[in-house]
Amino acid sequence: MSETERLTESVKELLEGGRDERLAGLLENAHAADISSVLRELPLPDQVRLFRLLTSQHAGEVLSELDDPTQRELLRALDEQEVSRVLDQMPADDVVEVVEELPKEEAEKILDLMAEEKSEEVQGLLDYREGTAGRLMSPKFVAVHEAATVTQAIEHIRKSKSGDDAFYVYVVDDHDHLVGFVPLHRLLTADPRTPIHVIRNADVESVTVDTDQEEVARLVERYDLVQVPVVDASHRLLGAIGVDDVIDVIHEEATEDIQRLGGVAGDETVLDPPEAVFTKRLVWRLVNLGTAVLAASVIGLFETSIRSLALLAVFMPIVASMGGIGTTQTATVVVRGIALGEVSRHVLGRVLWKELWLGLTTGAANGLVIAVIAYLWKGQVLLSVILGLALLFNMLVAAVVGTLVPIALKAFRIDPAIASSVIITTFTDVFGFFSFLGLATLLIRFLL
Amino acid sequence: MSETERLTESVKELLEGGRDERLAGLLENAHAADISSVLRELPLPDQVRLFRLLTSQHAGEVLSELDDPTQRELLRALDEQEVSRVLDQMPADDVVEVVEELPKEEAEKILDLMAEEKSEEVQGLLDYREGTAGRLMSPKFVAVHEAATVTQAIEHIRKSKSGDDAFYVYVVDDHDHLVGFVPLHRLLTADPRTPIHVIRNADVESVTVDTDQEEVARLVERYDLVQVPVVDASHRLLGAIGVDDVIDVIHEEATEDIQRLGGVAGDETVLDPPEAVFTKRLVWRLVNLGTAVLAASVIGLFETSIRSLALLAVFMPIVASMGGIGTTQTATVVVRGIALGEVSRHVLGRVLWKELWLGLTTGAANGLVIAVIAYLWKGQVLLSVILGLALLFNMLVAAVVGTLVPIALKAFRIDPAIASSVIITTFTDVFGFFSFLGLATLLIRFLL
Repeated sequence: MSETERLTESVKELLEGGRDERLAGLLENAHAADISSVLRELPLPDQVRLFRLLTSQHAGEVLSELDDPTQRELLRALDEQEVSRVLDQMPADDVVEVVEELPKEEAEKILDLMAEEKSEEVQGLLDYREGTAGRLMSPKFVAVHEAATVTQAIEHIRKSKSGDDAFYVYVVDDHDHLVGFVPLHRLLTADPRTPIHVIRNADVESVTVDTDQEEVARLVERYDLVQVPVVDASHRLLGAIGVDDVIDVIHEEATEDIQRLGGVAGDETVLDPPEAVFTKRLVWRLVNLGTAVLAASVIGLFETSIRSLALLAVFMPIVASMGGIGTTQTATVVVRGIALGEVSRHVLGRVLWKELWLGLTTGAANGLVIAVIAYLWKGQVLLSVILGLALLFNMLVAAVVGTLVPIALKAFRIDPAIASSVIITTFTDVFGFFSFLGLATLLIRFLL
Repeated sequence: MSETERLTESVKELLEGGRDERLAGLLENAHAADISSVLRELPLPDQVRLFRLLTSQHAGEVLSELDDPTQRELLRALDEQEVSRVLDQMPADDVVEVVEELPKEEAEKILDLMAEEKSEEVQGLLDYREGTAGRLMSPKFVAVHEAATVTQAIEHIRKSKSGDDAFYVYVVDDHDHLVGFVPLHRLLTADPRTPIHVIRNADVESVTVDTDQEEVARLVERYDLVQVPVVDASHRLLGAIGVDDVIDVIHEEATEDIQRLGGVAGDETVLDPPEAVFTKRLVWRLVNLGTAVLAASVIGLFETSIRSLALLAVFMPIVASMGGIGTTQTATVVVRGIALGEVSRHVLGRVLWKELWLGLTTGAANGLVIAVIAYLWKGQVLLSVILGLALLFNMLVAAVVGTLVPIALKAFRIDPAIASSVIITTFTDVFGFFSFLGLATLLIRFLL
């Protein structure tokens, strides 16, 4: 049994027994992340009861950890006064994460009820566009003037109550411009009288408030950072983004890619209410219906051939299906490669060559296998050869389509992951039906 | 132009001009991650030439940043003496990452040539199973005895030369058991005479050497850590894993899920040589061929009906295709939900209900649309109704299969992501062909 499961059992027992005081004591010593896992398994009235047993500070931490649908339902069940009191205790960037998920009116009402200073801080962050560094950053960070000594810097840190998650001190000049950073480790081991500008690292990586969050994540990964400073256009230090928020971004982006490749919106969670995702699911299913009708209309062109040789209808989905796996495999590797920054124009030729090589070899192998199976099953030599050839051709089409469509989308600044199987397998469906039924129709007098 | 592109241009210019001295100077001031990006775009002889211009220390950093195929080719082009000299300068955990990718013989030869102490450290790490915390950890960390004072701890840190990426000091007892940690921030702001055990945080999250790397990543995300201590079975501190390595794990796991869902091995990169991935690609393509033949054999049962009504062959792929998008969408959301730890047995009912609801509503909508299209196209009322109904049924099958197959795989400790479209759409292909052609065959005398 995991820690969360144990906690869930204890909480349920205490809730049933009505022992709220004991429960409050248990929760006080539990980690916010664990409490949030327990909460989402409980029915809403119990969620509210448990949430009210937490201190405002702890309640804020738990709220930050909750995922979307649970968070929204819980907030709706609490009164606004109560919510604003909890939000007052949370860091501004965490409040932003909660408030941005709410309907506009509700968000405004809650912000009005919050302490003025905090509310303004939050509204300042909300002014930045979603998905940018500005929206993601915390306005809390430790900065010292470059002329300060190590002793002065340490004194400043002590006063700023920056907390255990401060790992760097940023160095600024007279105009608050970011001019370097000092890891706490270096501050700790330096001579106390040394001026900060002597031990600072001037080669500081930073992002601007407008930087896309994906770009922020790439920087953190590339240079192994645990915190990135955020500056404005004139390089004034405005905030910092911690690696924990960056990890959330990495997850978000991976979820988006995985889901879009599977024909889903990109931000759906397993527990979203079905009404909320109905339209997005339906859109992709309708697009798929459209491409299926297109493929069917190709088959429609060959109705006469099928009437005279019904066997064609038995084999034709095999050609299309193999084109499908070909495009899907290729596009999956290429889309992921693009996301990881491994596909530049210099390597385009190598990638295409690799996929064509694989299309040709696996296509030949699969074509041979299916020709033999078809011959053993139905005993028609020529039809088996046509089937094998159509399959081989389709695998080559798959290699080209699967490589070039995502790369072309990227070039037009469209997310390559929307090159989901729904879209790209249309090419191989259409081509597969066309080549197999077309070849068979051309040679039909030898087949009957 | 990005920083990397600028660097690439300058490097190419200097390489062509033969100005190796200038080049060495340029590289000295560049970040290892950027140099590695430049390297992979160059032809191999230039890679070797450039690599030899780096100091051993810097060369080691660059080598760590290189991705698999480039790294392996470069190592093969250098002589072993040279490689071992570079590896000697790298942290043991980074050497492990390089050596584990090499063929066994080559790896042993290189380890033999390395400095004995470093080589033993590396071999110690290599003894842990791949994908565990032991294999991932660095044997370098800062630990102090619980009885030490803050001043003594700082003195110890100064001597240990732990480097700028130390963010916590671990606290151990007489037997080297991990009993807490102190963030450097707290050490910096505490009274120098305070004993460490007073300011330590006793609630320290740790993993054992056998913990799966995915579990390590989950812990880091859950508790927002920047470093995790690794202990043995008796809780003795052996090493630490930094968040940068955890981010690599998160990427690896996401790549694995994305690729497996797309019917690819899970660790393929865009630049892998085609021969190296041929077998893995072929296996999935053959599995797909098998499932396609299975679906074809269902169609084969209804050859007589198709001979009398070729129109059936035109419409049947639509039913299968819609089942395909249904299972793919559902399985994608469920597999990602499992990976993010959002699917517990308590919510299983809710997830299944959501998917059935979506299957029913979108199935009804799509069924209606296709029935109308089919009627307008071919004018056959009954056939259009059969088509619409078969599509609706298939969407319900898709909801059940897409939800339950990944969850069942997870229950049997098999990666749910191998429930790729290749496998699960077989259900909807077979059921789709069967229901549409079966219904049509039952009612065929009203259709002709």
